[in-house]
This record gives sequence, structure tokens and C-alpha cells, in this order.
Amino acid sequence: MLQITDHGAVRELRMDRPPVNAFNPALVRALTAAVEQAGEECQALVLTGRPGMFSAGLDVPELLTLDRADMTQFWKAFFGLLATLAKCPVPVAAAITGHSPAGGAVVSLFCDYRVMSRGDFVLGLNETRVGLVVPAIIKDALVRLTGPHRAERLIVGGELLPPAVALEAGMVDALADDPEAAVAAALAWCEQINALPRRAMLGNRAMMRAAMCAQFDALVASDVEQFVRGWFEDSTQRVLHELVATLKARA
Amino acid sequence: MLQITDHGAVRELRMDRPPVNAFNPALVRALTAAVEQAGEECQALVLTGRPGMFSAGLDVPELLTLDRADMTQFWKAFFGLLATLAKCPVPVAAAITGHSPAGGAVVSLFCDYRVMSRGDFVLGLNETRVGLVVPAIIKDALVRLTGPHRAERLIVGGELLPPAVALEAGMVDALADDPEAAVAAALAWCEQINALPRRAMLGNRAMMRAAMCAQFDALVASDVEQFVRGWFEDSTQRVLHELVATLKARA
Amino acid sequence: MLQITDHGAVRELRMDRPPVNAFNPALVRALTAAVEQAGEECQALVLTGRPGMFSAGLDVPELLTLDRADMTQFWKAFFGLLATLAKCPVPVAAAITGHSPAGGAVVSLFCDYRVMSRGDFVLGLNETRVGLVVPAIIKDALVRLTGPHRAERLIVGGELLPPAVALEAGMVDALADDPEAAVAAALAWCEQINALPRRAMLGNRAMMRAAMCAQFDALVASDVEQFVRGWFEDSTQRVLHELVATLKARA
Repeated sequence: MLQITDHGAVRELRMDRPPVNAFNPALVRALTAAVEQAGEECQALVLTGRPGMFSAGLDVPELLTLDRADMTQFWKAFFGLLATLAKCPVPVAAAITGHSPAGGAVVSLFCDYRVMSRGDFVLGLNETRVGLVVPAIIKDALVRLTGPHRAERLIVGGELLPPAVALEAGMVDALADDPEAAVAAALAWCEQINALPRRAMLGNRAMMRAAMCAQFDALVASDVEQFVRGWFEDSTQRVLHELVATLKARA
Repeated sequence: MLQITDHGAVRELRMDRPPVNAFNPALVRALTAAVEQAGEECQALVLTGRPGMFSAGLDVPELLTLDRADMTQFWKAFFGLLATLAKCPVPVAAAITGHSPAGGAVVSLFCDYRVMSRGDFVLGLNETRVGLVVPAIIKDALVRLTGPHRAERLIVGGELLPPAVALEAGMVDALADDPEAAVAAALAWCEQINALPRRAMLGNRAMMRAAMCAQFDALVASDVEQFVRGWFEDSTQRVLHELVATLKARA
Repeated sequence: MLQITDHGAVRELRMDRPPVNAFNPALVRALTAAVEQAGEECQALVLTGRPGMFSAGLDVPELLTLDRADMTQFWKAFFGLLATLAKCPVPVAAAITGHSPAGGAVVSLFCDYRVMSRGDFVLGLNETRVGLVVPAIIKDALVRLTGPHRAERLIVGGELLPPAVALEAGMVDALADDPEAAVAAALAWCEQINALPRRAMLGNRAMMRAAMCAQFDALVASDVEQFVRGWFEDSTQRVLHELVATLKARA
């Protein structure tokens, strides 16, 4: 599910859950543990995906089989993954190796730096199009990158952006020519950051990320419940089941 | 004073108070009521003006005849119009069909989306140039679009921007070739938004606009009084009377 | 240490402490007093430096001779200079006549407007590279100009930007062809601002800068102590002494 490769002090963590790196409870659990471990064992982290597919986001077919209690557990765990990325004690670069809709894009927002592969790929918070309301903590992470009005237009419209538009909007920091070049660029960025005086770099990094990290400490049960309530609303379930039917018809 | 045209589920609300769509108590009252009604009766709203003139802003000649009590009432009503636009339960697109200084630009800031006609038109918060201090709630709506420093420069300098600069600064979202094309683009934007899963679209929209809406709930009498006090200061009255004299000389 | 030239109602304050306009206690004291005096005696202020060198920032060789008590005093005085610039009752334009790393860039952030000379110059908050953590109040001033994520990347990386990149990032408002043209542009900007209705211009300016100014009122002893503690950490002292050794070897 995860391929781990150390390049000197930089660890590459490659999500590899065929076919589309969808986040089910097992991948979220494994990824959270691996990011925590990387924070202890190495100097910087590159999070990446399969060539052509960073992550398609939540594993909707599997999650639709969960009851309310299990879905609540899953959603707590997904917030836990985002918190672990936001608070990772070492810099984290996302190498976005392909499509990155919804949950795939969400995960990248909490990294320090995002480099996306050029190509026929899209990235964005398209939750509106699958019937979901974006949690506020995820919205705020996008606002941090794009400003409030651009984030409003992107989220309300559920827009999926090609690489050049994602760059212009601020959703990614840089583009690379292909998926492997994105990984190489993310590794190079980590090495550059690691060459800086470490105490000062980490101190400045902690200051710049303090507000984002503090939001996770302020998350309460009701924030999780709100998303779960939305998930089980009739109109949401209808859109999600239609989505799964479309995915099955394509396969 | 208002022309109402329904295009399917999208209502077009055209301000038509010759010669310049200036906001006097009657237009503010009528517009507020029409926006409220549209929020109940249709799925999206396009707010537009006369070809060449979206709105010249406050009707200074008429407002200068009001005493302090009536001006206080007017200003409460104008804030009420802005709150009604900000909190409108359906998306609102402004089709800026021409000039849009001061109050004209202000009204557009609280819509979801702004498309401005190309041409020899200007838009901006030029309150400094007519001797007025912009209320903080209006300043914050501009900051949302342009960021804090750009807003500082625009407001302090009282700058009026041609369409291309308004777009680059983030004060409008898109340009159209002429006034009617701006209306058509605003209608098309509404239809696109209305094609999305509605519960999720409206839920995401409410989240993105919550902070702006909450500011209106926090408005207190002293915010109104502050503007009215500024309006009746000698230096402001002098600039406003000079402005009216210039308008009369031109007419 | 300071050259003062009045151009009508606009005062030019030129830092002139050879060789690099480094901020030692004496320059900070003199500059604070001169900015306060300008706020009382003139209508606008241009802060500028030597051709090729706006300011190299803190005078590290001299500051390394200070004990903890004197360094605490110095740091309070430096925050006092920044507060004086932020709260100056008249508009302040920075004419960035050359290099402006670290403290040089910091001082410019609290002015109303920044125009930088084109040429082989760099500007930026490179504190990370000299082992220092940027105080939060300075970070927030950069965020105001560039947005939070761009500020994160600039500060964590300790990046020094050539003029064109500083403009694109929002760290400066305009470029000029050479150092003297930067001064001329800053003077012209002041004259333009001073031609506006004054009560309204100053009222709008105060509103736009209120949040930044309020932060200085909220500064407490612990904010000063935090920086001083970082200054005297072994790892910081090591980087700073290496820096001084490099400077001496170059001289």
C-alpha cells in the first residue's frame, strides 16, 4: 500500500494502492503511521502517488458500506492524517504525480510544498460535484494558498484544474514535466531546505504553520459529526451512489 | 426604478433610475425588497445596471438635503442592502454594465461573482476623493477580493480602475466585450452554478461566506454613527458640495 | 548618520551610516527620533538609503558585543522603530536604493509604499540563513503583502529576491530604473497622496493600518525575550560569528 525509499536523509513515501490510491481506513491508517515515523527518522519527506494518479480521494465504494459509527471513526482518522501532515516535525513536499481530485488534493494542502506533473491531469476540491460540503479546516487550508475569494469560487464550483491553472491559482507551487520529474523536483526541494541552518529553518517553519496546526487542536466532535451527518443525508447518498454506478460502468 | 426579467430560474434585476442609478432612499428600499424576493422566488440572481452605468453610487445631491436623523436612517438602510446581498440564499452575479464608482462598486463587492463590461468605464472605491472614510465592513469585503495591501493602496488613493486593471486587482472576476455581453456572461455563470448538486453547492457557498455575513450581525449603532458623523463634518460637506456643483455645471 | 532634505511638504530621510547602513543602537535611536519628528513637521516621508545599499540589516558585529541586558534594550528599540513607522501619522514611502536583506527589508515592510531600484540588488527576509527566527509581528507584516503561503516559503527558505521577483511577490509596489529614480518615484508618490482630500485620506489610511498598529500595542516582554533567547542560543551564535568572519575576510 506504501512504498518507502530513503534518499539520504529524505524519505520518499509513495502511495501505491491500486488502482487509484483511494483513501480507505487501511490506507489512512498506514499513511498516518508512516508520516509519523518519517517525522522521527528522517530530515524531510516526499509524499507521492502512482504515475498518473496521486490519489482519487476517498474510497467512496468502500466507505458507502460503513455504518454511522464506522464512518465517524474513519472521518476522525482522516482528520488525524491531515493533522499529522500539518504538524510533521520535518518539511513535507507533495509530488503530485497525476490526478488529484477531492481527498487527493486535500492531503496535498497540508504539505509544505506542492509540485505537480504537467500532463492531462486535474486537481481540485470538487466536493460540490459529489454532493459533499468541505469541512472548514480544509477550506481554511485552501484559503491559505489561494486567498478567500478564489477559494470561494473553486470550492463552490467544485472546480478541477489542469496543472497550469492550479499553479496560477496557487494550489501548487511548481510544475514538473512528468510524474517522475515531479518526484525529483520534490526531492530536490527537500535537499535545498535541509541545507539551511536547521534550528532557524524549523523555528521559522513552526511559526508560519502555527495557526494551521492550532486549528486541529480546536477541532471538536461536532466538526466530525457535521461531515458525517452530511454524508448520510439522502441527497448526498444519492449523488455518491450515482458516482459509484458510473465508476462501475467505466470499469 | 427596477426592471425585473426572469430567464428560467435566474432572475435579472436591472437598476434603472436615470440618469446614473444613484442610490437614494427609494432605490435602496426597492432594491433591498427585490433582492429579498428573488432569494425566495428564484434559483439565482443577476444584478445589473444601465448600459454604460452600473451605478454612480450614493445620490449625493439628494442625500445632502437629509438631516442627521434621516441620514442615519438612510445609512442603516444601505448597510441593510449590503447585508441582504451578502446573505442572499441564492447566488448573486453582478453584471457591471459600465461605470461603477464608490457605492456602485460597494454593492458589487457583496455579490458572489462580478463580470464587468470592457470599454471606457471605471470602477473603484474612490471615497477618499469625495471626502469620505470607507466603513470597515466594506473595506473587509474588498480585502477579501484583493488582499490587504492592495486594498490599502486602492482605498487610501481612492483609485478608479479601468476594466483590465479591475480584473488584475481581483475586484472583478471576468470581463465581457460590452454591457449586454456582461449580462449574458452573468446569466451563463448562474446557470452553470445552478447545474451543480444544489445542497452541496449551497452548503459550500454558505461556509465560504459565513465570515462576511457574520460581520453584518456584529454591526452596531456606533458603526452607523461613525459614518454619519464623518458625513456631516465640515471638510466632508465642503468636498461633497463641490462635487454637486461640478455635477450641476456638467449637466 | 541621517541626511534630511525637505522637498516642500515631503521630507526625505536618507540613512547614511557607512558602509552598509547597518542598524546599531545609535542608528535605531536616531532614525526613530527622526521619523517621529517628521510625523509632526511634514505631510509625508520618504525613507531611503545609500545608492546600492538601502540597509544591510542589523549590525551583527556590533550587536555581538552586547550582553543580554543591552541586547534586550536594543531589540525593544528596534521594535519601537518599527512601531513608529507603522503608526507614523503621515504616509511613508520607502525608496529601496539597493540591497535590503533581513532588517533592511523588515523596516520597509512597515512603510505605506515601497519602490525598489532595478539593478543587481536583493531584498528579503533571509533570517533563516543567518540562524534567526523572524518575530511574529514581522512575519505578519510580510503576510499582509504576499499572502500567508508565499510568506511561508520566503521566510522558511530565507530567500533574497532580485527586484523583479520582489515586485511579483508583492514585497515591493513598484520598480525604478536606478537608486535616484527610486527616490524620485517615492517623492512623486507622496505628492500624489498629499493632493487628496486630507481628512478622508488619513482616515482611510488609519483604518487600513489599524490591525497592524494594534499588534504593536499587544507586544509583550515575552516577545522581546523570545528573540533575545534565540540570539544567544549556541547554534545562532555560531552562525552569526561565522557570518562576521566572512564579512571580515571580504573586507
